[in-house]
Amino acid sequence: MNKQKISMVSKIIIEKELGAIIFFRPDELMMTLGYRPYWGLSVAVCYEHSNPILYVPALEPKLRLPKDIVVKRYPWGETSEDPFEILYEMIKEDIKEYGNYSKPVSLIKNVGNTTPCILSAEQPPLPSDFVENLMKVSKGGYKNVDEEILDLYNFKTCEDIEGIRLCNKVAGIGIKAFYDSLQEGLTEAEVSAKMEYAVRTQIGKNGVKYASGFAQVQSGINGADGGRYNWVTDKKLENGDLVMTEFAVVVNGYWADITRTGKVGIPSKEDIRLHEAVKKAQDKALSLVREGAISEDLQKAASEVLDTECVGKYFTHGLGHGVGFRYHDPGIRIAKGNKEVLKEGMVITIEPGIYDSSFGGIRIEENVLVTKNGYEILSKFTRELKGD
Amino acid sequence: MNKQKISMVSKIIIEKELGAIIFFRPDELMMTLGYRPYWGLSVAVCYEHSNPILYVPALEPKLRLPKDIVVKRYPWGETSEDPFEILYEMIKEDIKEYGNYSKPVSLIKNVGNTTPCILSAEQPPLPSDFVENLMKVSKGGYKNVDEEILDLYNFKTCEDIEGIRLCNKVAGIGIKAFYDSLQEGLTEAEVSAKMEYAVRTQIGKNGVKYASGFAQVQSGINGADGGRYNWVTDKKLENGDLVMTEFAVVVNGYWADITRTGKVGIPSKEDIRLHEAVKKAQDKALSLVREGAISEDLQKAASEVLDTECVGKYFTHGLGHGVGFRYHDPGIRIAKGNKEVLKEGMVITIEPGIYDSSFGGIRIEENVLVTKNGYEILSKFTRELKGD
Repeated sequence: MNKQKISMVSKIIIEKELGAIIFFRPDELMMTLGYRPYWGLSVAVCYEHSNPILYVPALEPKLRLPKDIVVKRYPWGETSEDPFEILYEMIKEDIKEYGNYSKPVSLIKNVGNTTPCILSAEQPPLPSDFVENLMKVSKGGYKNVDEEILDLYNFKTCEDIEGIRLCNKVAGIGIKAFYDSLQEGLTEAEVSAKMEYAVRTQIGKNGVKYASGFAQVQSGINGADGGRYNWVTDKKLENGDLVMTEFAVVVNGYWADITRTGKVGIPSKEDIRLHEAVKKAQDKALSLVREGAISEDLQKAASEVLDTECVGKYFTHGLGHGVGFRYHDPGIRIAKGNKEVLKEGMVITIEPGIYDSSFGGIRIEENVLVTKNGYEILSKFTRELKGD
Repeated sequence: MNKQKISMVSKIIIEKELGAIIFFRPDELMMTLGYRPYWGLSVAVCYEHSNPILYVPALEPKLRLPKDIVVKRYPWGETSEDPFEILYEMIKEDIKEYGNYSKPVSLIKNVGNTTPCILSAEQPPLPSDFVENLMKVSKGGYKNVDEEILDLYNFKTCEDIEGIRLCNKVAGIGIKAFYDSLQEGLTEAEVSAKMEYAVRTQIGKNGVKYASGFAQVQSGINGADGGRYNWVTDKKLENGDLVMTEFAVVVNGYWADITRTGKVGIPSKEDIRLHEAVKKAQDKALSLVREGAISEDLQKAASEVLDTECVGKYFTHGLGHGVGFRYHDPGIRIAKGNKEVLKEGMVITIEPGIYDSSFGGIRIEENVLVTKNGYEILSKFTRELKGD
């Protein structure tokens, strides 16, 4: 378990007078226990004083379960009875023993809007009344403390930062594959396949136990849509194309979210001008990152640079968001009109981008740790148009 | 849209006296409209007489939207107001015009337990009250017709079968990569990476617009867990290992679910005995597949063969399930005690497997179309221990 995070959870339980806080969404389990579920049917119950208890389906793999807390199995996959009824009863009994059964429990009710599990080819087979039933495991009922729980995503412990650092390192290997693939005639899909392959084959190296990459690639005119969505088509890279990749990487349960833009062939003066404008906007925003900085000020600073460079109208989205427990963490957003304050220990993206049918798409996205007096870039690899 | 399926939906609306049926889960949209959503925020409303109307977020890619029905955009990603409130109002107004506002609507309430969207690095960012609000878009309220909707998964139209056929073809290319990778010293993860790469690079060939593979590989002793879960580790393939792959593949929104077991080096007599037993069990079950066959009879037949071969105790799971709109469709299950009847047009898996620490795991999984008088294997590629 992540001791620092669990003690923050205990604090919420005390302050909000709860009997327990329940986590079942994969990103919450990663954040509190350092554990990414396989099936997506695991539940952690956290208490004021006792250690959390983790409930996993009978078929959950043993190998990567947390070793420092009690793990109980419920008979999902093994019984013809309803295994979830058994799970709810197990939780109820434990709340009576370890929590406060007369006080309410809290949990985030949103089944979707989270990260995929290890078994990512399917969304978890939770029954449709799962949340409703979890809300009733205590006599004290349910109490909404979503704001406090969502704020937990914003703070990364040392353990989290190490994990995100490793994930960024692996992402860098995928990004190298991206630059190496910027060859005329390869399809966007082939570039993406090479990037994902580079990530997947890192398993077993440098402490990487689990890794998957989700690479999207948009070349030439396709990049003009890159501010609205990212995917791949069978379009072949052509000499002269700008090529943008949006790259989600998960390593041992931690996520990175990286964008780079490269060039097939020799960059033109115009390419360099546009790309430099985005770099300048990124550098300007980065120069403001520190504990105490205001979200909207970063967005404004990046926009001003792009305006000065006469490409401001092509910058159509928010500048960044929290990242690490998910591809896009809930919590902090770097956006216009947002007065949230940056705090030490946050990990955020800084991702200015410009999109137009006249050149395609150019975005550069870094993953950045906020420190007391500044920042540390975790995605420490080239952001140039040519990767070498 | 899938006309045959949509007319089945209309029939349910009439029989169950509904105002409309609402689909929002990605597999349902694939099944009814032949459309796999990008963000997972799309909603289709089907009527008794009128064509369905599809609502997609403003940021949804244009390229793969259905071309033969009305598609409306709601301002998700574009407005600071709640875009979902706008969506619910749009649906309400259209039900008044095209449906029957005084009759109830129906929908499957389960947000999870479905297939991932094209943006598969995240589960869809639906608000937690999404289903609750959709249940209120008609004055007539909500009515549960889950049984009828889930039965729609069981019937594959000609269009569906062509899609699943193509998906199986692509899966076969991944399976070839599997057999080619059965070399001492490669890790399970490397084998999986090669399979996924083989699938991803099919985009643009033979009508493949979109393709992803999710390959799990368990070698040697790791295969003993293969009846409970499938994943990859950094274990290196060793000479003498049996290697089992569980392979989910999605092509243009259709899914295949394939298992093969191979051998590193020369198969021993014992390998061949065990593998032949599984093949025999599969052949026996296949010989019973036809319109009118009873689910439990197939399971029983496979079990009896494995019992005769003295490995029945190692067969610990159900024999099969529907497949095509998902990795594991809801609907038909081939299992002990299940009296469901096979129907023409179903696509099912037949996947006997045996698992023990003495040899690891051996499973062979075919995807099979049920016909009036028999079956057609869609996964028409070798199932032997050596791939050549």
